[in-house]
Amino acid sequence: MKNWRNYLGMVGVVTGSMTFVPQVYQAWVTKSVGDLSIWMILILLVNVSIWLVYGITGKDKPMILANLIIMALSLAMLYFKLTF
Amino acid sequence: MKNWRNYLGMVGVVTGSMTFVPQVYQAWVTKSVGDLSIWMILILLVNVSIWLVYGITGKDKPMILANLIIMALSLAMLYFKLTF
Repeated sequence: MKNWRNYLGMVGVVTGSMTFVPQVYQAWVTKSVGDLSIWMILILLVNVSIWLVYGITGKDKPMILANLIIMALSLAMLYFKLTF
Repeated sequence: MKNWRNYLGMVGVVTGSMTFVPQVYQAWVTKSVGDLSIWMILILLVNVSIWLVYGITGKDKPMILANLIIMALSLAMLYFKLTF
């Protein structure tokens, strides 16, 4: 049960890291971001910063890596939102 | 340090639950979802399902609640994406 749950958590970290890849890709290709909420992006950045600190203070490497990836994708979305 | 980190996790759960509220609101008001990636929404649904099972099997009530909220918001985004 413990191993099964750890494995599930790993899959969660991987899918979580992937979540915003298609959104960043679509925004990049279409150069169209009008329907993206700036507040979603800003709250996402706050949230991912919190989980990054949480991961760092807990020495949780998969969590740190996942949140660094989501932070990079969030910053890309913010940049697209402000410039397109 | 332990208490401080628990408190940070609580703030993370709250901001995580709020992340997609402005996006759902904007989609609802504008009826415009063309710039939202369907793949972001689908991967988000898979990811939130994984963390929901993770939370349930770990009897982690804040995690269960946060993921139920994000799941409801994701389903709203999916519904808007498919019908607007």
